[in-house]
Amino acid sequence: MTFKLDRYKEPDFEKEIFRNAPDAAAVPAPKDGVAPDNFHAMSIFPEYFKVGGEWLLAAESRMDCVPVLKDGSIQVVEFRHLKKGDLIICGRTENCEDGIYVNADGFNEGKSASETFAFRQGHSRESSFSRDYDELYELLKYEKNNGRIVWVMGPAFSFDHDARDAFSRVIAGGYVHAVLAGNALATHDLEGAYLQTALGQNIYTQKNQPNGHYNHLDTINKVRYYGSVPEFIKNENIDNGIIYSCEKYGVPYVLAGSIRDDGPLPPVIGNAYEAQDRMRNEIRSATTVICMATTLHSIAVGNMTPSFRVLPDGTVRKIYFYCVDISEFTVNKLTDRGSLSSKGIVTNAQDFIVNIANGLGV
Amino acid sequence: MTFKLDRYKEPDFEKEIFRNAPDAAAVPAPKDGVAPDNFHAMSIFPEYFKVGGEWLLAAESRMDCVPVLKDGSIQVVEFRHLKKGDLIICGRTENCEDGIYVNADGFNEGKSASETFAFRQGHSRESSFSRDYDELYELLKYEKNNGRIVWVMGPAFSFDHDARDAFSRVIAGGYVHAVLAGNALATHDLEGAYLQTALGQNIYTQKNQPNGHYNHLDTINKVRYYGSVPEFIKNENIDNGIIYSCEKYGVPYVLAGSIRDDGPLPPVIGNAYEAQDRMRNEIRSATTVICMATTLHSIAVGNMTPSFRVLPDGTVRKIYFYCVDISEFTVNKLTDRGSLSSKGIVTNAQDFIVNIANGLGV
Amino acid sequence: MTFKLDRYKEPDFEKEIFRNAPDAAAVPAPKDGVAPDNFHAMSIFPEYFKVGGEWLLAAESRMDCVPVLKDGSIQVVEFRHLKKGDLIICGRTENCEDGIYVNADGFNEGKSASETFAFRQGHSRESSFSRDYDELYELLKYEKNNGRIVWVMGPAFSFDHDARDAFSRVIAGGYVHAVLAGNALATHDLEGAYLQTALGQNIYTQKNQPNGHYNHLDTINKVRYYGSVPEFIKNENIDNGIIYSCEKYGVPYVLAGSIRDDGPLPPVIGNAYEAQDRMRNEIRSATTVICMATTLHSIAVGNMTPSFRVLPDGTVRKIYFYCVDISEFTVNKLTDRGSLSSKGIVTNAQDFIVNIANGLGV
Amino acid sequence: MTFKLDRYKEPDFEKEIFRNAPDAAAVPAPKDGVAPDNFHAMSIFPEYFKVGGEWLLAAESRMDCVPVLKDGSIQVVEFRHLKKGDLIICGRTENCEDGIYVNADGFNEGKSASETFAFRQGHSRESSFSRDYDELYELLKYEKNNGRIVWVMGPAFSFDHDARDAFSRVIAGGYVHAVLAGNALATHDLEGAYLQTALGQNIYTQKNQPNGHYNHLDTINKVRYYGSVPEFIKNENIDNGIIYSCEKYGVPYVLAGSIRDDGPLPPVIGNAYEAQDRMRNEIRSATTVICMATTLHSIAVGNMTPSFRVLPDGTVRKIYFYCVDISEFTVNKLTDRGSLSSKGIVTNAQDFIVNIANGLGV
Repeated sequence: MTFKLDRYKEPDFEKEIFRNAPDAAAVPAPKDGVAPDNFHAMSIFPEYFKVGGEWLLAAESRMDCVPVLKDGSIQVVEFRHLKKGDLIICGRTENCEDGIYVNADGFNEGKSASETFAFRQGHSRESSFSRDYDELYELLKYEKNNGRIVWVMGPAFSFDHDARDAFSRVIAGGYVHAVLAGNALATHDLEGAYLQTALGQNIYTQKNQPNGHYNHLDTINKVRYYGSVPEFIKNENIDNGIIYSCEKYGVPYVLAGSIRDDGPLPPVIGNAYEAQDRMRNEIRSATTVICMATTLHSIAVGNMTPSFRVLPDGTVRKIYFYCVDISEFTVNKLTDRGSLSSKGIVTNAQDFIVNIANGLGV
Repeated sequence: MTFKLDRYKEPDFEKEIFRNAPDAAAVPAPKDGVAPDNFHAMSIFPEYFKVGGEWLLAAESRMDCVPVLKDGSIQVVEFRHLKKGDLIICGRTENCEDGIYVNADGFNEGKSASETFAFRQGHSRESSFSRDYDELYELLKYEKNNGRIVWVMGPAFSFDHDARDAFSRVIAGGYVHAVLAGNALATHDLEGAYLQTALGQNIYTQKNQPNGHYNHLDTINKVRYYGSVPEFIKNENIDNGIIYSCEKYGVPYVLAGSIRDDGPLPPVIGNAYEAQDRMRNEIRSATTVICMATTLHSIAVGNMTPSFRVLPDGTVRKIYFYCVDISEFTVNKLTDRGSLSSKGIVTNAQDFIVNIANGLGV
Repeated sequence: MTFKLDRYKEPDFEKEIFRNAPDAAAVPAPKDGVAPDNFHAMSIFPEYFKVGGEWLLAAESRMDCVPVLKDGSIQVVEFRHLKKGDLIICGRTENCEDGIYVNADGFNEGKSASETFAFRQGHSRESSFSRDYDELYELLKYEKNNGRIVWVMGPAFSFDHDARDAFSRVIAGGYVHAVLAGNALATHDLEGAYLQTALGQNIYTQKNQPNGHYNHLDTINKVRYYGSVPEFIKNENIDNGIIYSCEKYGVPYVLAGSIRDDGPLPPVIGNAYEAQDRMRNEIRSATTVICMATTLHSIAVGNMTPSFRVLPDGTVRKIYFYCVDISEFTVNKLTDRGSLSSKGIVTNAQDFIVNIANGLGV
Repeated sequence: MTFKLDRYKEPDFEKEIFRNAPDAAAVPAPKDGVAPDNFHAMSIFPEYFKVGGEWLLAAESRMDCVPVLKDGSIQVVEFRHLKKGDLIICGRTENCEDGIYVNADGFNEGKSASETFAFRQGHSRESSFSRDYDELYELLKYEKNNGRIVWVMGPAFSFDHDARDAFSRVIAGGYVHAVLAGNALATHDLEGAYLQTALGQNIYTQKNQPNGHYNHLDTINKVRYYGSVPEFIKNENIDNGIIYSCEKYGVPYVLAGSIRDDGPLPPVIGNAYEAQDRMRNEIRSATTVICMATTLHSIAVGNMTPSFRVLPDGTVRKIYFYCVDISEFTVNKLTDRGSLSSKGIVTNAQDFIVNIANGLGV
């Protein structure tokens, strides 16, 4: 099996429905951070807005944000970033009535409605995931050179020796272009490299180390003492792990702060909205997103990831989105987004990443 | 059954082990935000430090933070708030060896070790919770006038009509002294009051409203337009719900921002660490804490809640901590804190709060 | 709100599609216990078969069993009960092509397709169940005198003092017409009455009794000694609990054996297929079925419960089917049956039954 | 790492406590199937009974069954198999007081109490399982030639292409000495071989086949038509899958009937207690037991598996018991047996068995 991108079916703007549509209405924001009544909010799909008789695609979309007409293009902006007077497209129809067209079926050619429906069904522990794995291996091999793969992970992902090791090899293999996580993931990963434990328990033998509850605090304090992760790595001769591998291979990582954090580590972004912006910046160029073992980060990233990407040459391609979690609740929460490009795998993320590393041969 | 506080057993400082103990070592912080090597970190238990021959109790404790000697008392400070030169108690023993004593059994008198152990066992869907409910009713009646009850809740808590209504009655009844939550809880609660939906689904009939995915965005935008929740309540004639009841009865609420937020609502605190500080300020006077249907907030609050409270008259009492969640994973994560005062109830928080309202007769 | 049965929409057999349809083919079973190739298998919906020009409804249906033409009517028979030569209807179409019509929309009148779809969506811990409770109270009040309510429950249902007590009151109130369960449910319920424990743990205080692991064995052994549950109740002065209440109020209960059983108690049916037959006998007259806290029994009963019942006067009514479980996996497994009449509630069954008892005022 | 069996520490019967102990009391059963009051019930540990001054080990034990003195040895018998007059050992002490000694620490030498405790802690999705996998690979290689490995599995285990394939290779590799399962596992595995689906869904592509809900019924009906699984395999040219591999390599399999069964397939044992006896017969010689993706069968087998095995040469060795499930609830239910030899792995059984096949190099 070799991976092949689905072709995007652009709307035929010569059709009467498009030609007869009015221009979309653009209404100024009444205050900073506030949209006018009847504002349009984006979906995950490609959306086109008729402006001066032309249909403009909102290239970098984001669900539940608003389209702003600026310098002749459509920018998709969070409420908190709106400025008074920004021109916001208004209208809540999706089929040209208000000069707005949502292209929900752009990647769906050749599939009958019943097949489409069948693909949408929920995943459970009893689903067969064999083909999902095979497809994912092929996808990742394609994306390594042709796309950008963003990985999102929860704190416990670094608790298991083999998972941590497998992901490090996936990084070394060139399959990781950005990592989005939080303070705890980085802390316990560095704790693993520094003291061989996660929350004081040896990540291989599972033995609780005496006074091991100090280990993550000692790790955090040491990194804070050195002032940065790279200095900590250098001075303490750290030579393994997720964060180490990111630093070694120049993979950017964004660590978002949360109310449960100790420390935090120096690069953690304490302001949730600044962190969100930084995460979205990584997502703006992502073509595949894989979320593992985290509900909070998966929802956050799911919210900011559209179903498509406009490549530099103007072609539109699909974004692949995976949610891997041991809880059907989390997986189905993410894959209920109505998008064919979103897939759920119900399993322990440790086994998932070991499988991925095996399947990629790294 | 009438509730009666367990008496606290203070250590007998006349014993030889206390008298012979050295003074605790206090070492200056080498930099802002950094503790010296061998820093002591706090547990959830009452801890005493020998300073100038006297044993000082750290009155407002917080797990995994450090004891700082300041103005003759022990303050418990987060790493990020340390200032260069702050005098931090060092030593990692717990039984006077370094002038530090952790009183883990202060509320445990009269129970044999085996009973203690029995109480510590994990809770599952198959545990009997009858007595836990009965005890909780009595506890809340006691705390209404003699303590301070802090409630912590996840976003979905406002999705159910009866749960939202029951909690509003619990507020009106005087059983709520503070609420800790996030942007989504407040958003969907206000959406329920404003448009009768949560995420576009009617909170009673479960019917999806046409274009209902706009409802939470319209709610947020409206509140942002008015500039504050009270102005929104006044101008839109909101007359029900959790946030409405907090405003009506003067119950403080802290809304912490997170990376998954839309909006946010005006009072949401975007910086996670500032939010953490504000939450801890509410916890500093809490005597009972009840966490419902949230893993993130439960862990955050669990981390900052000690097992005891020093009352204004100097007496030490227990803090009661409950974690209510449908997932054993979350419940056991919280109740694995080694504290007798922590209890888990495995159920849907909707039914829990309806039971509580019935049990309190509100 | 008062409960009102949905009216059943019978097919209009005067329509051309029915009049032009061929008679259904009936082919003899080639061997005992074996159906001919191309056998028809039943769904949960009302199904009609054209025999001698007349459309016959299979009155007592059961999913995945086969329609047998016998004495001029259609009987629905398990494979294992087929006899060589039995006339089995063959054909796998559903819209008259083979003289078979599946009336999937009989209770669906007046609802648009999109509403129907909306009702079918999965339930999770985050669904609002307020209306489901209110509807269920009204349904049970109606069924008390006009229907037959069958309750199905897993072993842990008797572990909680309040749940056991609430269900006993529901029995006493006349809302229970049959109970389907297993050896463990009955054992622990009787253990609760005899020794105040379940698996050796006090069902109210949760305290483990010394040598309490003997309690369920002593209970079983005692019942076996007396030879029957009624004799045990009489001789040991049992005066509370689920099984006691069934005996007191003459409610039939079927206890199915399983490979995990100790004992078993005398009335337990060791043969799984004989037990299945006995369970189906109770279901043949059921109008509402409520499954609580059991995956095995819920699936078993779900498989044998059609979506409709033919009343003695020939009218067709809906069967209401509820699955109550703390696990979305179990609830969704049951409610994925494609039937509008099947509802899932995700919660701890203890709280569910306490709510029900409160809602019924018993 | 090479696997090495822990040595069993036999009690030192020369010690005073053993020499001074009375003979165990043996009391006749008052009726068929009934034990006398004060009967002793077995644990999972090696237990010794003083008879005629000699300490006899109950060689083939089973939790919650009773020790019967017969022909000079101790047999462990289910209640239902007791005959009036059987001599049953009575007494509920464990430390020689009644001539009964439970050797709970026989495999625990050299470990301190705190280590023992640490090993007993619960497993969750956040536990590190790396070492567990590595140990299991070594264990299975040892057991292939020196022990007997019994695998237990739930119905969904055959739903996934890779899992089914991996387990077939584990069978072919000689690592499977018996399989315990139910009607559904065998049905869907044979459906996979016969029609490439499980419950009508392709086991690799996940596509729902038209009229696919007939597939498992057609499979069952066909096997019933041929009269046996081997005849079905021969006549329909089945050449892959779990049951096929068992037949090909002469691996015995026991299929227990349950109330949720369709069919059943010919070799399924309808009587739960007869099935239990047949399962125990396989367990009597087992040295490693691995339960995957089933709560019912895991509990059943867990109940009948002691912690030790007496080899033909009289030496006592440990039995290794694993429970693999995606639900912490199931895993912890099984590993709460108080035995060091019981281990839980929280993951999807599909990934588990693929890992095992990789780790064994089959």
